[in-house]
Amino acid sequence: MSFRPLDPDFENKTKESFSRQWFMDFIGAELTEVRPGYCEIQVPYKKELSQQHGYFHGGVIGTVADNAGGYAAYTLMPADASILTVEYKLNLLAPGDGKRLISRARVIKPGRTLTICRPEVFVVKKGVQTLCATALMTLMALHGKSDMPG
Amino acid sequence: MSFRPLDPDFENKTKESFSRQWFMDFIGAELTEVRPGYCEIQVPYKKELSQQHGYFHGGVIGTVADNAGGYAAYTLMPADASILTVEYKLNLLAPGDGKRLISRARVIKPGRTLTICRPEVFVVKKGVQTLCATALMTLMALHGKSDMPG
Amino acid sequence: MSFRPLDPDFENKTKESFSRQWFMDFIGAELTEVRPGYCEIQVPYKKELSQQHGYFHGGVIGTVADNAGGYAAYTLMPADASILTVEYKLNLLAPGDGKRLISRARVIKPGRTLTICRPEVFVVKKGVQTLCATALMTLMALHGKSDMPG
Amino acid sequence: MSFRPLDPDFENKTKESFSRQWFMDFIGAELTEVRPGYCEIQVPYKKELSQQHGYFHGGVIGTVADNAGGYAAYTLMPADASILTVEYKLNLLAPGDGKRLISRARVIKPGRTLTICRPEVFVVKKGVQTLCATALMTLMALHGKSDMPG
Repeated sequence: MSFRPLDPDFENKTKESFSRQWFMDFIGAELTEVRPGYCEIQVPYKKELSQQHGYFHGGVIGTVADNAGGYAAYTLMPADASILTVEYKLNLLAPGDGKRLISRARVIKPGRTLTICRPEVFVVKKGVQTLCATALMTLMALHGKSDMPG
Repeated sequence: MSFRPLDPDFENKTKESFSRQWFMDFIGAELTEVRPGYCEIQVPYKKELSQQHGYFHGGVIGTVADNAGGYAAYTLMPADASILTVEYKLNLLAPGDGKRLISRARVIKPGRTLTICRPEVFVVKKGVQTLCATALMTLMALHGKSDMPG
Repeated sequence: MSFRPLDPDFENKTKESFSRQWFMDFIGAELTEVRPGYCEIQVPYKKELSQQHGYFHGGVIGTVADNAGGYAAYTLMPADASILTVEYKLNLLAPGDGKRLISRARVIKPGRTLTICRPEVFVVKKGVQTLCATALMTLMALHGKSDMPG
Repeated sequence: MSFRPLDPDFENKTKESFSRQWFMDFIGAELTEVRPGYCEIQVPYKKELSQQHGYFHGGVIGTVADNAGGYAAYTLMPADASILTVEYKLNLLAPGDGKRLISRARVIKPGRTLTICRPEVFVVKKGVQTLCATALMTLMALHGKSDMPG
């Protein structure tokens, strides 16, 4: 599906919002791609992100699924709107066993009030990407509430 | 609902497993209560856990919901079983605006293979607890695979 | 939780809307209780509602969970609003083995735009009610769009 | 994704199981395509399937999503296994306004115990198919419990 963004500055505003999320910096997440209706976030492995078997913790997998979905929706919002996660459902499909997580989220149904996204999370090991989680997510636009600090 | 744990040592094994999760330590999460079919996890606020408005990041809320649900199920497992999150669905109900998160998860349907839990997350501000997320979650037992490090 | 309905005529409008759903009549569903933020729907067994083992079909269980959740939310809407199901997640906990289904749904978070409900479905056999499904559901109000036929 | 069925007779066993579901016959559903890891179910409109605006009732949409997902998983099961819906999450994306529903479900992660499917439901109006619902679903195999009537 191809989307026309309402805000021509969608890429900058998305990067700027991402950069103000302390938690993304804390876990070492990077915003690696932004397109209309699409967002990709990557997280290199560090042991602070692991669970008891040394794999990426499910909480990190859920975090990047949620965040990529939120920013995929945000790319399609007008300049004066911010976005809230209403809910998501996440299936964990394989252990987070690898050196990097890549979360890719696509909008599957845009809307003025609600937007539906499908985030997927891959784990990369020896160059092979394995789908380790898939999600289905609902977001709500807050119109007249820009996401800018101030 | 009241549950009889299959493993009399359920409290120690749960605390021991939790203590081996680097990510819980990294975000400052504490396992504050363990009972058969129930688990409570708390996280004090620090700015590293925040999103762009200074509230607890949704990823942290999801992480403690997931983890409390997992350990609530784990309390009912036999000694030689570990537990995997199959999936969860989380509704975010209010901003994570406060000084502490408290996640409380209850088993609503135990089973030999699958266990269903209901995690809830509260945010505490000026002593008042507000429900900020509720979830519904499915976990699977892996029998013959103790969670102990090898 | 106790709720104050915005429309004093909430009970009549709910019953009236239910009575216009052909599908409810087709499966033999009855609206058995309406209170602010709460709705109960019952379906007596008939073999047309069964799956291959003679139990209530999962589709019937999902239908009454969805519908009870929708009407629980509808009781709290102002007179000029209708309600849409945004999404729900349903866990099936036990076979629908019995003579009657009872779906009970409660609002857990009301809102002007979005309302969150928790529907549960019980199956009744020899007078014993067994929880056979639990759900978590998001609904959206459409303001200025009364549900009345026009 | 392409799948090798464990039971070479997967098509017949799927059709045979479907034919024993009274509820599918009652709503007029037809099993229109079965392939390894894929199932399509169609339902022509009749007013008995409608909600208060004359569209397909959400319960019918949920029913065919659930059922197509279940049979998509069933095609990959060995001959002596039956399949149970553990849970699903469904987002309703557009009104069920049309003359026919088509539910198409694909397995996205097969497994010995758990299988994950993605059902989609389209509504057909004047020859145009509109996506009206998308789901994410978990199923469990019951090994040694053939679905055959006894």
